[in-house]
Amino acid sequence: MKRIITLTTDFGTKDGYVGTVKGAIFSLNPRAEIVDISHEIPPQNIVAGAFCLFNSCSFFPKGTIHLAVVDPGVGSRRKALLVQTQKYFFVGPDNGIFSLALRREKLQKIIHLINSKYFLYQISPTFHGRDIFAPVAAYLSLGIDPDEFGPQIKEIQNLPLPAVKKTKTNIAGQIIHIDNFGNLVSNVTAEGFAEYKNMKVRIKKSVIPRLSRTFAEVRKGDLVAYMGSSNFLEIGIREGNAHLGLKAKLGDRLELIL
Amino acid sequence: MKRIITLTTDFGTKDGYVGTVKGAIFSLNPRAEIVDISHEIPPQNIVAGAFCLFNSCSFFPKGTIHLAVVDPGVGSRRKALLVQTQKYFFVGPDNGIFSLALRREKLQKIIHLINSKYFLYQISPTFHGRDIFAPVAAYLSLGIDPDEFGPQIKEIQNLPLPAVKKTKTNIAGQIIHIDNFGNLVSNVTAEGFAEYKNMKVRIKKSVIPRLSRTFAEVRKGDLVAYMGSSNFLEIGIREGNAHLGLKAKLGDRLELIL
Amino acid sequence: MKRIITLTTDFGTKDGYVGTVKGAIFSLNPRAEIVDISHEIPPQNIVAGAFCLFNSCSFFPKGTIHLAVVDPGVGSRRKALLVQTQKYFFVGPDNGIFSLALRREKLQKIIHLINSKYFLYQISPTFHGRDIFAPVAAYLSLGIDPDEFGPQIKEIQNLPLPAVKKTKTNIAGQIIHIDNFGNLVSNVTAEGFAEYKNMKVRIKKSVIPRLSRTFAEVRKGDLVAYMGSSNFLEIGIREGNAHLGLKAKLGDRLELIL
Repeated sequence: MKRIITLTTDFGTKDGYVGTVKGAIFSLNPRAEIVDISHEIPPQNIVAGAFCLFNSCSFFPKGTIHLAVVDPGVGSRRKALLVQTQKYFFVGPDNGIFSLALRREKLQKIIHLINSKYFLYQISPTFHGRDIFAPVAAYLSLGIDPDEFGPQIKEIQNLPLPAVKKTKTNIAGQIIHIDNFGNLVSNVTAEGFAEYKNMKVRIKKSVIPRLSRTFAEVRKGDLVAYMGSSNFLEIGIREGNAHLGLKAKLGDRLELIL
Repeated sequence: MKRIITLTTDFGTKDGYVGTVKGAIFSLNPRAEIVDISHEIPPQNIVAGAFCLFNSCSFFPKGTIHLAVVDPGVGSRRKALLVQTQKYFFVGPDNGIFSLALRREKLQKIIHLINSKYFLYQISPTFHGRDIFAPVAAYLSLGIDPDEFGPQIKEIQNLPLPAVKKTKTNIAGQIIHIDNFGNLVSNVTAEGFAEYKNMKVRIKKSVIPRLSRTFAEVRKGDLVAYMGSSNFLEIGIREGNAHLGLKAKLGDRLELIL
Repeated sequence: MKRIITLTTDFGTKDGYVGTVKGAIFSLNPRAEIVDISHEIPPQNIVAGAFCLFNSCSFFPKGTIHLAVVDPGVGSRRKALLVQTQKYFFVGPDNGIFSLALRREKLQKIIHLINSKYFLYQISPTFHGRDIFAPVAAYLSLGIDPDEFGPQIKEIQNLPLPAVKKTKTNIAGQIIHIDNFGNLVSNVTAEGFAEYKNMKVRIKKSVIPRLSRTFAEVRKGDLVAYMGSSNFLEIGIREGNAHLGLKAKLGDRLELIL
């Protein structure tokens, strides 16, 4: 049965851990279609993993199984989960890694993965990605009923994004992600974009006079504020790198002002 | 319909942008075979992207769709293109990224991608890789006729490699790529290799006394000049790194001398 | 014919070399399933490649073809090999890269790859990954008999791991791998784990008072010694990075003491 399984992890790509997980999946379902979302989540950074999954997962077809493993609590009492939504399945640790993605989905079922019949024979206490999550995703891709994997539960860890603070004349957010191009992604969302139209953006010691639709609206080397492809306000430099140019870092404050 | 779609981008692999593009493709054609050529083209470096695609694309089977997105002009008036050759399809921005690859191909048709029926529903002004090029490649892989995507045009941006200068006793080129092993790839091509046979190679302050067929012809740690697997003259160090050893950089001069 | 071909190389992912190898495989067998184990083996580091392949390969299904190319001797007289075991095929240079993986397998046949009918038409003296190993793996995935590729031979290069030294009160090993999380993997194996139970671990100037099953048994920031998922003794720091925290490097001594 051909079913897509995506992978979002902090494993890196140098050690072969990702290959191992793929081997474990293909050993159970040679017809699975495995797609990497990212393996370069900073080690143990659950927020970064949640954000990456959130940005990418909704572009996959209905029925996709999203496996996400950023798992600093491996071997502790944190639960192993399967979450079923109207469109997708999510498999991974109960530490908040799905909480951003789930905002957009219609939740149907949360399963606590405890049926070891669907785990690898011997469970390493440090590599549940290989020994629990990969085989569960593989069995799921073969059509095993979610309820087979364990009992339904009601609660799941939640991981909120830092809140945006709004007054009548000011919206204050922060940088929550810096991408490969050095673009600074903030937590200010596109909802209410209309009201931002006449606002300036202040970041570090710079003020950007208005929002743009695209990089091409400013000159080469200039700062540009725009609604990014993930629907968050972003700061970039045309044909440059805002991360380096502004010496910006995660958590830096960004303000929309009148 | 099983059809290979290759990806060459400057997206990096940490943000999930590549996963997003693959999701967009699989959502339209779950049977596509997507193959990464590289996602580590230096941001906005069209020449590097063109060179990478040039080296790799011709090894793929007939009918392959080569999607290449290094796109500093996204959101400007640069065109979106589909280029059909006797052997392949190329999809991406009209900025010269295909110009090296196309030298080797028999051009059949250039299509200006304007039929938004084949784009994602809502187009981000900063991520045409996801919203225009990925769905066009996916529809193409499903057998949609190239002419469906827009009108034929005649012109395409060209991006020449820097020229090699030849005299009777001297051939002067430059370093155009540095690879993962630190090997220095020049713009001097294998055509005329026979006449190089008795020449020395000068680079930085070193002179390499002759061309070799392979690294094994010199001693460990020695400089070696050879025709690389892409048919350009390359400089390496046996079991070492010429990039570091020579402190070489892109654009450095290299000469063949009698 | 659908058959998995894994890739373990030192090619890196920036240059398109990996894409080229995949193109060469798909040109011969469009139905192959190609899976990356790692392309970030440090250039020409055969031991690191052997270790990576060893850790990952056994999780793949029976019949998998493991292609491994870390090949400082390319173009020299080192042999090109196909090794058949009860469970797998291994294709690559005869330089010891398979020697760790083969310890666990039942060897059936070693073939010296000399039948150029199964190579690319023109062989580059520096890229046998593309020109010899990729097509051989592809033909093998199509069901070509191993004996077609060349004569059987008896000997293969061996690459031993450094030996562990044991006395009645002391077991001395060394760090043989540092992973993406900064965990230090030693050459001390899980055999005899029972007898280690009451031992301390000394590394650099630190002493870890006992072995743990999992990171969760120590406090955040503390050193932890545990049997890793590859069945070697590892040193980590809970929610930290032992590589950086201990300023450890490959070859550093590690002792189990009473």
